Amino acid sequence: MGERIKISPLSGFPEWNPAVRRTELRMLDAIRQGFELHGFLPIETPAVERMEVLTAKGGIQRQIYSLRKPGEGGEETGDLGLHFDLTVPLARYVAQRAQDLTFPFRRYQMQKVWRGERAQRGRFREFYQCDVDIIGSGALDPMYDAEVASVIASVFRRLGLSEFTIRLSNRKVLSAVLSRWGIEGEDVQGYLRLVDKHGSRGAAAVTEALQGEGNAPPPLVELTGRLLDASNLDAAESLLRDQGVDASGVTELRDVEQAALRLGVAREEIEVDLAIARGLDYYTGTVYETFLRGREEWGSVCSGGRYDDLAGYFTDRPLPGVGVSIGLTRLLDLLVQNELIPVESPSPTQVLVAIQDRTYLEYCLRIAATLRSAGISTEVYMQPRRLGDQLSYASSLGVPWVAIVGASEAEEESITLRNLGTGQQEAVPLDQLVPRVSGN
Amino acid sequence: MGERIKISPLSGFPEWNPAVRRTELRMLDAIRQGFELHGFLPIETPAVERMEVLTAKGGIQRQIYSLRKPGEGGEETGDLGLHFDLTVPLARYVAQRAQDLTFPFRRYQMQKVWRGERAQRGRFREFYQCDVDIIGSGALDPMYDAEVASVIASVFRRLGLSEFTIRLSNRKVLSAVLSRWGIEGEDVQGYLRLVDKHGSRGAAAVTEALQGEGNAPPPLVELTGRLLDASNLDAAESLLRDQGVDASGVTELRDVEQAALRLGVAREEIEVDLAIARGLDYYTGTVYETFLRGREEWGSVCSGGRYDDLAGYFTDRPLPGVGVSIGLTRLLDLLVQNELIPVESPSPTQVLVAIQDRTYLEYCLRIAATLRSAGISTEVYMQPRRLGDQLSYASSLGVPWVAIVGASEAEEESITLRNLGTGQQEAVPLDQLVPRVSGN
Repeated sequence: MGERIKISPLSGFPEWNPAVRRTELRMLDAIRQGFELHGFLPIETPAVERMEVLTAKGGIQRQIYSLRKPGEGGEETGDLGLHFDLTVPLARYVAQRAQDLTFPFRRYQMQKVWRGERAQRGRFREFYQCDVDIIGSGALDPMYDAEVASVIASVFRRLGLSEFTIRLSNRKVLSAVLSRWGIEGEDVQGYLRLVDKHGSRGAAAVTEALQGEGNAPPPLVELTGRLLDASNLDAAESLLRDQGVDASGVTELRDVEQAALRLGVAREEIEVDLAIARGLDYYTGTVYETFLRGREEWGSVCSGGRYDDLAGYFTDRPLPGVGVSIGLTRLLDLLVQNELIPVESPSPTQVLVAIQDRTYLEYCLRIAATLRSAGISTEVYMQPRRLGDQLSYASSLGVPWVAIVGASEAEEESITLRNLGTGQQEAVPLDQLVPRVSGN
Repeated sequence: MGERIKISPLSGFPEWNPAVRRTELRMLDAIRQGFELHGFLPIETPAVERMEVLTAKGGIQRQIYSLRKPGEGGEETGDLGLHFDLTVPLARYVAQRAQDLTFPFRRYQMQKVWRGERAQRGRFREFYQCDVDIIGSGALDPMYDAEVASVIASVFRRLGLSEFTIRLSNRKVLSAVLSRWGIEGEDVQGYLRLVDKHGSRGAAAVTEALQGEGNAPPPLVELTGRLLDASNLDAAESLLRDQGVDASGVTELRDVEQAALRLGVAREEIEVDLAIARGLDYYTGTVYETFLRGREEWGSVCSGGRYDDLAGYFTDRPLPGVGVSIGLTRLLDLLVQNELIPVESPSPTQVLVAIQDRTYLEYCLRIAATLRSAGISTEVYMQPRRLGDQLSYASSLGVPWVAIVGASEAEEESITLRNLGTGQQEAVPLDQLVPRVSGN
């Protein structure tokens, strides 16, 4: 054997140990259940798309990994790249298959995406995104936005993260305010950026920033401040009406919030926050951000909104939609680092069948077959080592039960069953093993 | 909007419609259940590895997609590539984490892999592999090979593919035969290739090929023929003993087969076939191939074997192991094309709540909340269209039930429940809806 290849972790490409991977699978299962409970259809698109598809909207082109097939002659692949999100593939998918899909098309998609980001703590180059979207053909009723709030709440409860707040806003509200004072183009982005940046520190911080850095007209500054300070949507609505500003965004926001509550979102799980302004250049109606209470500094862990046209780069058909995305890898990493969720044991095994003497191998294998037939995860320690070694093996994997067999057990068709949690042992007849282990 | 980007499928990168994707998920779930029932731990490795890791074993380097991060200046990524199987990543994973793992390390891994193959029907460039392996540190008892046969049987039954045969061989048998006549080096590969190529046509076809094309010594040809013709392992064993050939491979094969049967593999599900010789340059003991009865022309759909050293390129520690791999994408494609498995409906939704009039929206949302609280997949058709449109929507997605609400239903707190399978409608009180729909 020649020189050995040195191996070291690849920065930005997370790889969990089995216990954390089992925890990630538990979260993926919970999210999928929440999505399916709301009638979303699963799709999966290839990791690979044509570069012209990936770059159609411009933007984060500098982060796209492109592919090259080497081999003799260094054959090119024909300009392929790895997808950096699941929205561009969805747009391509819907445009390509519009004839075969049933609209409104509710789809979920849970896949890895890749971004050539500068590596830094908590910033991943390969990570899971879990997306739901509802796409209309031609039109999509704003009431669908309440279904999206309902699916967010369902998913976070299933994740065991019951302390969450969905913050809801609507792009139309600030748009109407801006258009009332004739603000257009880049000034709109500047204004929204300042509202978003300072919004969490309250209305006064926002108005100060708009006045100073933003150089915004005084009546706009004042109305923004009063709007962010409004105690509820009725107050916000009167305020806008009094100033001659179109208040339809407020009406829509109220309807969506009400419908979300009727769909089972709890009062404390949802909250209108007109200061949410990130991504408002892309979204056209409802906007969602989701925060874990007490962990607001993590930022939103599930964001999205309503858009007018999903796939204008690929098709003439207008495809309005609404959806949200969870960046699961970062969320898992934060939850595990901060010990905010239970981490699974490394192994799914419920019972380890220990082997001390090959004489009883046949009986040991029968025990394993019996347990597995009943759906109980079982493994056989196939090498006759010291019992202590086999117990440490089970213990380090978090296996709760060990089935021990010697001459008398094999003769009587019984098992000495050891509970590794309590350290207690008891004799169990083979025909009682399944109920004993499954707690029935 | 400028010119639209033309989109067309990427050859070799499969993308299923939602019904087939749901079928794929059902299969992935079944495989995972079978793996976990046998106490395998899940791991997931990044899609991306260092090129020097991927190419350590040489071989299919010409198929590896390498990555390039473009951006200004065309920054290189530092020689990264997409994994082309899950064995090389497993070797790297185990070598890197040997200190933290508990051995024997039973791991399963179900991920996409990428190969820059020439595109042709049934040959994919991106596809799922589902692997199980048991890795020992220093040594691994041959009896573990029976656990692998058991997991194969469990998985194929769970996939609903009960008509399968696991064909078992052991590299040591033909090795001993070859070494008895002093065959070495390239001649070994030539011999194994001929046995594998003609094995399915019987012993006579093999001996003819070995004699002609293979130019093998007559006693070797004769013994090979008699061995492949042997009616059972006892006969094979006597034959080898008579010729002074080491028969330990036969003993091991018999022990593994017996143990597999004790573990619950059915007699008709497993069969010794000494003509299985593919991959014998890599494997050192037991070899597995799995065929679907009546579809032998598909070749093996789950293959693998025993190896002496998983990760010699990365570590000094000897890591013997045994495992198998299922190429799920090809299997799914063949099963669906040949209509050999039931394809799921496109949608998981059990009940569509139809909306005909916004007046009753509040009640409709309450119905949805009630169903979802009981775990019943439900969606609300949030736009008040003609009932006929809503029924066709449900029908095209395979949704079995539609909940219809009008003035009288809203007043009485009942639902007109339509079964789309039978076309029958009935009035159901709201508090009876969950048991009615879930069939309790």
